[in-house]
Amino acid sequence: MTETPDALATDPARLGLMQGFPPAPDKTLDLLRSDSRRWPNTRWSFSHQREMTPTSVVRRGPGTASVLPYALRDDLDAVAFTSMDGQAMDWGQSLAANYTDGIVVLHKGAVIYERYLGALEPHMPHLAFSVTKSFVGLLAALLQAEALLDPEALVPTYVPELAGTAYGDATVRQVMDMTIGVKYSELYTDPKADVWAYSRAAGMSPLPPGYDGPRTIFAFLQGLQKEGEHGQAFAYKTCNTEVLSWVIQRITGQSFASLVSDRIWQKLGAEEDAYVQVDSIAVAMAGGGLNTTLRDLARIGEMMRLDGVYNGQQILPRSVVDDIRGGADREHFAKAGVATLPGWSYRNMWWVSHNNLGAYSARGIHGQALWIAPAADLVIARYASHPIAGNGNSVLDKVSLPAYQALAEHVMATG
Amino acid sequence: MTETPDALATDPARLGLMQGFPPAPDKTLDLLRSDSRRWPNTRWSFSHQREMTPTSVVRRGPGTASVLPYALRDDLDAVAFTSMDGQAMDWGQSLAANYTDGIVVLHKGAVIYERYLGALEPHMPHLAFSVTKSFVGLLAALLQAEALLDPEALVPTYVPELAGTAYGDATVRQVMDMTIGVKYSELYTDPKADVWAYSRAAGMSPLPPGYDGPRTIFAFLQGLQKEGEHGQAFAYKTCNTEVLSWVIQRITGQSFASLVSDRIWQKLGAEEDAYVQVDSIAVAMAGGGLNTTLRDLARIGEMMRLDGVYNGQQILPRSVVDDIRGGADREHFAKAGVATLPGWSYRNMWWVSHNNLGAYSARGIHGQALWIAPAADLVIARYASHPIAGNGNSVLDKVSLPAYQALAEHVMATG
Repeated sequence: MTETPDALATDPARLGLMQGFPPAPDKTLDLLRSDSRRWPNTRWSFSHQREMTPTSVVRRGPGTASVLPYALRDDLDAVAFTSMDGQAMDWGQSLAANYTDGIVVLHKGAVIYERYLGALEPHMPHLAFSVTKSFVGLLAALLQAEALLDPEALVPTYVPELAGTAYGDATVRQVMDMTIGVKYSELYTDPKADVWAYSRAAGMSPLPPGYDGPRTIFAFLQGLQKEGEHGQAFAYKTCNTEVLSWVIQRITGQSFASLVSDRIWQKLGAEEDAYVQVDSIAVAMAGGGLNTTLRDLARIGEMMRLDGVYNGQQILPRSVVDDIRGGADREHFAKAGVATLPGWSYRNMWWVSHNNLGAYSARGIHGQALWIAPAADLVIARYASHPIAGNGNSVLDKVSLPAYQALAEHVMATG
Repeated sequence: MTETPDALATDPARLGLMQGFPPAPDKTLDLLRSDSRRWPNTRWSFSHQREMTPTSVVRRGPGTASVLPYALRDDLDAVAFTSMDGQAMDWGQSLAANYTDGIVVLHKGAVIYERYLGALEPHMPHLAFSVTKSFVGLLAALLQAEALLDPEALVPTYVPELAGTAYGDATVRQVMDMTIGVKYSELYTDPKADVWAYSRAAGMSPLPPGYDGPRTIFAFLQGLQKEGEHGQAFAYKTCNTEVLSWVIQRITGQSFASLVSDRIWQKLGAEEDAYVQVDSIAVAMAGGGLNTTLRDLARIGEMMRLDGVYNGQQILPRSVVDDIRGGADREHFAKAGVATLPGWSYRNMWWVSHNNLGAYSARGIHGQALWIAPAADLVIARYASHPIAGNGNSVLDKVSLPAYQALAEHVMATG
């Protein structure tokens, strides 16, 4: 088995990838070819998604950005912890170990730590992958709070087109908490997994010659069949988020991108426009297509930490945040067998730890994370381009979760 | 001959095009298919380019937008004029006649008129087409003012890769004023014209199966051969702008998008991020790929009217604006035989009328225009989706230029 090159060896800035007009031939990615979407080229391309695919804007609006106060600390790199594999490490080492592209840490609302590695820069949006799902969950919960969405209603109440599918007898609540019985494989290492069919329909993967499958996310969803029962067990499947996104777009008559902009981004005082990758009819890939800067992702975390208040506004009702923090059925979650997340649950497309810090999280493959620890007044926003596409019991968590915990305990003891 | 449907009959909002989740099948454009790029679908897609192609951001930055004061007038729709074809019309009628998607008029710095028709809205960027060229011209002139670019130097001084091409013995000045002898046809109605080969290389047109031509703009430019002499006559060819863009990117080490952002957009206090379509290696289509809001385009016009000053800053040296306003050799221009532009010239990628108002203009096919009339303190910014791709002696000018002139004379008399 060949050793995977480390973060330094694959650092696109250090390699001079895509530098110059034009870059040297051996430093050039052809962004229309699929090779540019494969690791280690993803170390560059996760920070340049809009230069590779169609996107919709999530506007910040014409106002000024909200102030993100700085109180940088130099004692964090040395914070020691032990990984789940029993390896002694410090915080500084954990960044490279997880192929971190950038990280922002807020303590009591101030930036105490900020690093950009590889291709990412403060003003650049990075692919958030499944962190996107948590935005869909927030919007759905917001519509619920406004009595525009009834979580106990069946999905076809809102989207009749899904009547003959796995979602015909599912409640919106079951979709929001991902306890849906649907035949859909999310196994990224299997080229025949449904997630790749979804990716092609969503415009995220190139279409093979002669492709005659679905050309839109909505068309793909209408082919999903039931497998097992709803409401019995947590099963992490991106198609559920796309169904929920369809529901909220149908209810509001607004696109996902404009909903995030109107309901969150403009109120937040985001520093930069965000954007979301879209399918062939300009519908957002709500299961994993959002791109934001790290600072703006950290602002979302701070808004959650402050019970929905940020930039002088109650952006989300406190009930929405409380509902997520409270989590969902932990026995349902345990059935999914996520080894690195014992005792967790999944509520409204957020991952809830139920630990001593009250920590909960938005998570994406390849190391995307927003981690909020209320008891430590801590928010961590991280983007990464890890070679392994792991959501759950992967090498990432084994380093990250102990690192986050150690950092939280450190700032609680010293801050 | 079939009559071309008029602006009302092709209004995408009125037709309900791309409305709903999903839109009705007969109201849906498949944005990955080339049909969505054909008129009348362009009436929608010119306002949605980023949802169809890869793009690079032109950042406005985190600050607040500059104030655009309003002093709206209700007397302008009735301003009468006679088209070059002898047709009596008024200003209000001229908008539909030219398939206008939106228009903003500034008088003495205040918005006196603003309309959005069809798919365009105030916050939405619209495809500027060759108005983009005038931004390249501004940046080149700015580098000249900073002594970073010598217009009298030969092109290969900056881009040695062009030594064996039409540009091997051309000066940068000849490129800036488009007096280049190069074998390149810009005839949009001819499917075999070089402009389509350029469009494919730039990622603007779909690649046919088995395509083995150039996959980047730079590669395309290296295939251009000399035809005729340089410095003798104006000949409008988009490849010249791409050469100039290569020169300024090579000199600065910055992309066109980041140059526009750093040197213009952020200083301007633009309301929205702009963006530019890019080729397969993320190089901007500088000959025609910029997308801006109308208000931000109007701000550019006002900056020019105020000798380079806007938002409390000298954004461009006065010498840059003076040079453009002074125009170039009118005999060179006359040789191009643009029937609607008698007595005009072309300087630094701007069109200069030499008329009684001192008017000069940035112009793009399908009706894109920024028209600045210093003697009338007037700026007109217009985006359109006219069925005919005309730069010069087209149906557009026959209505627009008399309309602009009449509006200028009206505000001078009444304002």
